[in-house]
Amino acid sequence: MSSQELGESPVVIVDKGSVGIVKTEYHTFAYPPNKFVLDNDEKLGPITVAYETYGELNETMDNVILIEHALTANAHAAGKHSPDEKYPGWWDVMIGPGKAFDTDKYFVVCSNILGSCYGTTGPSSVNPETGRPYGFTFPLIGIRDMVRVQKELIDHLGIRRIRGIAGGSMGGMQAIEWSLLYQDIVDSIILIASAPRSTPQSIAIHKVGIQAIMDDPNWNEGNYYGKEPPNKGLAIARMIGHITYLSDEWLWHKFGRKHTDPSKMKLSLDSKFEIESYLEYQGSKFVQRFDANSYIYLLRSIDLYDAAEGYENLDESFKRIKCKKVFVSSFSSDWLYPSYQSEEIVRALKANNIDVTYHKIDSPYGHDSFLLEYKKLTRFINDFLDSLK
Amino acid sequence: MSSQELGESPVVIVDKGSVGIVKTEYHTFAYPPNKFVLDNDEKLGPITVAYETYGELNETMDNVILIEHALTANAHAAGKHSPDEKYPGWWDVMIGPGKAFDTDKYFVVCSNILGSCYGTTGPSSVNPETGRPYGFTFPLIGIRDMVRVQKELIDHLGIRRIRGIAGGSMGGMQAIEWSLLYQDIVDSIILIASAPRSTPQSIAIHKVGIQAIMDDPNWNEGNYYGKEPPNKGLAIARMIGHITYLSDEWLWHKFGRKHTDPSKMKLSLDSKFEIESYLEYQGSKFVQRFDANSYIYLLRSIDLYDAAEGYENLDESFKRIKCKKVFVSSFSSDWLYPSYQSEEIVRALKANNIDVTYHKIDSPYGHDSFLLEYKKLTRFINDFLDSLK
Repeated sequence: MSSQELGESPVVIVDKGSVGIVKTEYHTFAYPPNKFVLDNDEKLGPITVAYETYGELNETMDNVILIEHALTANAHAAGKHSPDEKYPGWWDVMIGPGKAFDTDKYFVVCSNILGSCYGTTGPSSVNPETGRPYGFTFPLIGIRDMVRVQKELIDHLGIRRIRGIAGGSMGGMQAIEWSLLYQDIVDSIILIASAPRSTPQSIAIHKVGIQAIMDDPNWNEGNYYGKEPPNKGLAIARMIGHITYLSDEWLWHKFGRKHTDPSKMKLSLDSKFEIESYLEYQGSKFVQRFDANSYIYLLRSIDLYDAAEGYENLDESFKRIKCKKVFVSSFSSDWLYPSYQSEEIVRALKANNIDVTYHKIDSPYGHDSFLLEYKKLTRFINDFLDSLK
Repeated sequence: MSSQELGESPVVIVDKGSVGIVKTEYHTFAYPPNKFVLDNDEKLGPITVAYETYGELNETMDNVILIEHALTANAHAAGKHSPDEKYPGWWDVMIGPGKAFDTDKYFVVCSNILGSCYGTTGPSSVNPETGRPYGFTFPLIGIRDMVRVQKELIDHLGIRRIRGIAGGSMGGMQAIEWSLLYQDIVDSIILIASAPRSTPQSIAIHKVGIQAIMDDPNWNEGNYYGKEPPNKGLAIARMIGHITYLSDEWLWHKFGRKHTDPSKMKLSLDSKFEIESYLEYQGSKFVQRFDANSYIYLLRSIDLYDAAEGYENLDESFKRIKCKKVFVSSFSSDWLYPSYQSEEIVRALKANNIDVTYHKIDSPYGHDSFLLEYKKLTRFINDFLDSLK
């Protein structure tokens, strides 16, 4: 959920070890009768999950770290698929020998979330019953469904206990839900720039993106596979997203009011501010790699998530958590997942006497800090994971 | 530039007097040879200006207040056009007998800005040379052009001196520019939730709105008059705007995560959060009253404005200002025209030894505070105008 995801990142300085060449694996679950019952009681299946693993599972099988990705990332969190791959996985700065999630110590698993378009079943997957992509016949999914699918993967891998589940942004929502649903097997969760629920401002911003996609004549009620996709609408949605990933402060620093062609700025709209060209570029890049329907479904899963669902409040809901420790961090300039939301999590954990470490990190990058402040995070997370032993 | 503009407002409590029934007047300037030279050296003309006046010009002609409207408002700032008109003018709470701009004392003038679509020449006006609406052949205009056109109106009305020029948001930019261009005739300016230039974040947000309009197939390079207008794109642009007019805090208070149909929220995207329905409603209302091309041109005029243009910095630029006093106010929760921008104005004024009154008003409403906090503003502005005597 960031401008830095998936190789668009300036963060390619790999000053520590790499996990090397990795491969995305796929596993398809066959439920009787091939259907998974979703949180909304709709059925879906068979479900395929794309995942990667880094490091080695130890003999006692107690060194597992689960990585939860955000909105538009995928299972490829670290290493490269081939030596020629331009950029490593989306969180390579954090995963590898000697890094925050040290693959000399931990067995790290990252899977693509349900509803996405990177190998795990989603709207662009073929519905075996029709032989055509689901499109908008795909059921609405929630964070809880994503987590339950990941649990199936963990079971398939023979894992019975998880040392830590880490996620930034929407990934943090998944980590929270893990600790609520499968409390007996989760030792710790690591929440970075996350929230127990999205703000109405975030829902509003998502709404505009979803509407822009649906208003694109190419969207065609979600039936655009094999035809021209709704790239204009998706680019608009992505541009809005990008604005929310960055802070006002960082936009001043990075772009200011710089203009690509100052001599023509008063003459023509074709002459643009640099921030405009940047957004256009991000929009055009994004439509090459992401499915518009997936984008709608995943935005909606964030809107719908509420860690207090079914309980009177967050304190009551968090009574279920049995983690030994919880790590929470937020960033001062993040207005999409503002610090007060992380602090609400911290308060509810403390109300339940759960050991929580909270860092509000002073950072200018806005929500993107969760990917850019990897050096600070590495130090904090190393300490946190060491303290779990 | 607000959800409260033009009768969409809950602010209809008129607890003081009204200016009564008013009428929009029109004046067309005939320049030799009917062309006005814009700031970018392009020529435009003839130019018609729509305006309203309230109160009486006194004998010494020194009781003139100029009201500068924001993005999508118009000349109808106070009173009603007929007894049946549903809502009064957009700033009726501030203009009238006993109000902030007291029409028992002042002669108040408000004109529709150049490029708009409420009677003053803009892209939807007919180009006399072609007999068709200008559309996108309309030249790019700036805040300075708007002010220069207003000066022509003031000259036409025989006004030689202005007691105060007041504007919120983009209206404040016009007031600043008045004080820079016509420094000998402006006694004071009143800036509410304004800025010396737009932030890159604001430019970015405008960009997405402009792109959404241009991506609408009905936009047709601006040639949609007499055909189906690009209402979907314009609604998207307006929805984005609305989000920026309100604060996160206020959205929590007003909408929270309330859902129009909680039983179906996990089942269908047709089931919406209340904030989504609100945005849809605002979008659908807006397209009935505003021209998409005007929206693009006016957003751009804001992007391009810089009160320091042509000078090394704001301090240098403000050396031109000869106001007796300046009133500046900002609102704590306004993230579109954040307080630090008002404070930059205040600093530059002080650097030039200009008498400035600054109020940072603690308010939850975001940028819309400039319309909603009229009671506080009334008190402050009454005091300010009284102190000018």
